[in-house]
Amino acid sequence: MDRQQFESVCVHARSAMRLQTAADTLEWDERTRMPAQAGDYRAEQVSSLRAAVHRQRTDARYAEDLQELNQQIASMPPDSDEAATVRGLYRDLCRNQKLSTELVEALSIATVRGQQTWDAARKADNYQQFASALDSILKLKREEGQCLADGTDRSVYEALLDEYEPDARVDSLKQVFDELRVPLVELIQTLHDSPHQPNVSLLERSYPIEQQKQLSHFVAEAIGFDFARGRLDETSHPFCTTLGPNDCRILTRYETNWLPGGLYGTLHEAGHGMYEQGLRREWFGLPPGSYVSLGMHESQSRLWENQVGRSQSFCTWMHPRLQSLFPEPLGGVLAHDFYRAVNTVRPSFIRVEADEATYNLHIIIRFDLERELIEGTLSVVDLPSAWNDRYERDLGIRPESDADGVLQDVHLSAGLVGYFPTYTLGNLASAQLFNAAKADLGDLDAMFAAGEFTPLLSWLREKVHTPGRCYSGDELIRRATGAPLSAKGLVEYLRSKLLAVYS
Amino acid sequence: MDRQQFESVCVHARSAMRLQTAADTLEWDERTRMPAQAGDYRAEQVSSLRAAVHRQRTDARYAEDLQELNQQIASMPPDSDEAATVRGLYRDLCRNQKLSTELVEALSIATVRGQQTWDAARKADNYQQFASALDSILKLKREEGQCLADGTDRSVYEALLDEYEPDARVDSLKQVFDELRVPLVELIQTLHDSPHQPNVSLLERSYPIEQQKQLSHFVAEAIGFDFARGRLDETSHPFCTTLGPNDCRILTRYETNWLPGGLYGTLHEAGHGMYEQGLRREWFGLPPGSYVSLGMHESQSRLWENQVGRSQSFCTWMHPRLQSLFPEPLGGVLAHDFYRAVNTVRPSFIRVEADEATYNLHIIIRFDLERELIEGTLSVVDLPSAWNDRYERDLGIRPESDADGVLQDVHLSAGLVGYFPTYTLGNLASAQLFNAAKADLGDLDAMFAAGEFTPLLSWLREKVHTPGRCYSGDELIRRATGAPLSAKGLVEYLRSKLLAVYS
Repeated sequence: MDRQQFESVCVHARSAMRLQTAADTLEWDERTRMPAQAGDYRAEQVSSLRAAVHRQRTDARYAEDLQELNQQIASMPPDSDEAATVRGLYRDLCRNQKLSTELVEALSIATVRGQQTWDAARKADNYQQFASALDSILKLKREEGQCLADGTDRSVYEALLDEYEPDARVDSLKQVFDELRVPLVELIQTLHDSPHQPNVSLLERSYPIEQQKQLSHFVAEAIGFDFARGRLDETSHPFCTTLGPNDCRILTRYETNWLPGGLYGTLHEAGHGMYEQGLRREWFGLPPGSYVSLGMHESQSRLWENQVGRSQSFCTWMHPRLQSLFPEPLGGVLAHDFYRAVNTVRPSFIRVEADEATYNLHIIIRFDLERELIEGTLSVVDLPSAWNDRYERDLGIRPESDADGVLQDVHLSAGLVGYFPTYTLGNLASAQLFNAAKADLGDLDAMFAAGEFTPLLSWLREKVHTPGRCYSGDELIRRATGAPLSAKGLVEYLRSKLLAVYS
Repeated sequence: MDRQQFESVCVHARSAMRLQTAADTLEWDERTRMPAQAGDYRAEQVSSLRAAVHRQRTDARYAEDLQELNQQIASMPPDSDEAATVRGLYRDLCRNQKLSTELVEALSIATVRGQQTWDAARKADNYQQFASALDSILKLKREEGQCLADGTDRSVYEALLDEYEPDARVDSLKQVFDELRVPLVELIQTLHDSPHQPNVSLLERSYPIEQQKQLSHFVAEAIGFDFARGRLDETSHPFCTTLGPNDCRILTRYETNWLPGGLYGTLHEAGHGMYEQGLRREWFGLPPGSYVSLGMHESQSRLWENQVGRSQSFCTWMHPRLQSLFPEPLGGVLAHDFYRAVNTVRPSFIRVEADEATYNLHIIIRFDLERELIEGTLSVVDLPSAWNDRYERDLGIRPESDADGVLQDVHLSAGLVGYFPTYTLGNLASAQLFNAAKADLGDLDAMFAAGEFTPLLSWLREKVHTPGRCYSGDELIRRATGAPLSAKGLVEYLRSKLLAVYS
């Protein structure tokens, strides 16, 4: 491999990443601090930067160098950092070359403004306010998908999906989702019929926000989120964003009468953040220092939120802190009752607050509806009723407001079409990885009960974080767990935990 | 004038401004929220953006267009928005063309890192930690000054000064400073000898930070700072930055035992902010929508801080709010005693907390020392003792620590050489403008006592803010006040107010 050419390609890619993280910083600021009237100009700023990033990433000289390097790596070990760098950047280049700078800029403007419109519409609980922005975004996303699908055997939707979950296909996703749906629906019914319902109402008492913030900071730090290299803030739609090799920011939201919202939201985003913080810093901005897929990213957030955070041992460890922070609502509540409460299964409207069993039903609805929107078989006008019908059919409840229904997620307004299925892939991977970690590390519950989370985090660092994008997510799962990704682990985990909780 | 050429130049300049404000947003974030370890990468991001801005602003095609347009405007009214746009952009272009992108990038890296180093050194109260960073910055600033002075009759220092105060000269600054120094030193002595000293200790009682924040928000909003188009935050070195036409951010700092720090810091920064918010938004990023000079900027901050904020009528208006926010330290304190306390004159170490009379002595020291640093007649090693000697000579007090002395200001670390003199120019202008406003508007004191600040703000909007950079700061002062800038107004204002306070 031509070393000088390789260095030059890396310098160029890192420089594009500096602009991208600058744009991301502006978006983080928009969603946390920006004054109310500053939105229009912010959309222009971010879009200028995104366009500049796109121009850099499709630069002719860079493209030439990458093409040549991509031939040179044929003889190298494919998992090596260098080969992975060239392969990953070349893959991204081929994608980017299919999109014009004009389309990238138009998409950026439409989605930055779209999020502003969505946020206002959600607050006003009025889908109509958002409909025309959504329509414009979908047109642009369809155009993007068509450009990307061109010359491949992918559908338009699959071409979009490919950005978040490389090489994923609709048919295999459908198959996995079916393997999951049947046992989950059965399990949910069993739990529903059980005479031993947890007392979920104890989580709906009054929990002062200030103390919730302290709790969030405490648990995030305890499991290993590094605050010298990150922050935790409040926002209206929780997320995690990486603004530099030592700057990962997680955001959550708090509700006085729903403790799990802030607490498990924090564990979730901290899981994302710890993946980012575990990537190799010296490769920041290049494939070996990047996450491998959004499904894998979600596996990390869900693992800390659920396999860890909703375990009996974690609740036991957290119990004294809960008692001291919330003497009013939790005084006299046993750790075991708290554990049962946070594992309550009941159909609900809001995905991010859904329990582990019904969560995937929320995803399946979104996966179906967004595909129909892109394929044009569902219109923007009909989306709310289609949404509500599906909730009624699949979960047995019908949202009474847009805010509790179709307006709850930021994704469509941000142009993140094809993103939702990665959540369920993440759930599958989290269960499978956790089982493998247990097999390797022994009694994790004893560790959690003692507040020892480092062994698990170190295991994840080695198996999941350090490889970056050096091999695929599928390959990573195989190497870490000894088997390909399947629904089996998740179904068994949910059955065994939840049947116990309800007996 | 070729309309199409004009439009194309404007589009180009606005696009550079979008990148510049993106970099400014990253710097605001750095000084408010950024995690501790993220500094190195942030320096790279900001410097990449600054380099990109410089490249855009020296683009060959843009330069050609501007050169042609600059000949075409000869026949146009010079104050017109179009002529001012071309003239201002052409002036900036000629400056920018003298600097290489490498130098701009090196300066940016050195100053972003320099501020980080300075901040740590100030906290550690250790000048040695900062000395070598300062040395590098001064070398680069000298190089910049040499490039800019080349082909002009300016000295290296004047070439740097010119960025902040167009066309200012050292000799005329010296003359103005002398006109000010003699009467001020005399006045300070008279006040010192007066038997009627104000009771300043009432400002040193315990003022809870939370209530100080409420007070700051209250006064900033009352005088006219628009929070829908801006924010107020905390930082270690107060400043004001504009991130878009509807996004102006002011920052202050609070000390429990020194109420004026946060309060007058806020009024000061809000004055800057209201200038920015009063510029014409449709010209954002172009000379008609830009401030004319830093001296004029400072006139706005000092006017609201001092002529308004330290007036008896303002203190009277604020008194009930002070009483309700701070019942402990201010219960029983009369408005008049508060007014006298905030007008206490006494030599002190910290410039930003200095009274109005001694303030300019702080500036004169800095003006002299930074000139010597740039000219090489003072070395970085000798700076602290030179600093302390001057304080002893001019103010009769000797700083006992670097934090209270040479490390107190951010300016050198940020490469802002030539910036300090604009503070005193601003003081002169604030007094002169305020007199003119009084002559036009009548009894301002009656208005302030009733909480009516809109008439004054509207007057400033018309006379100072709306013109932007359409004519020079000198010309603006002549038009607004009927006379050229002089020390007379400030000296008379200080004499008449302070002699009364002390009698």
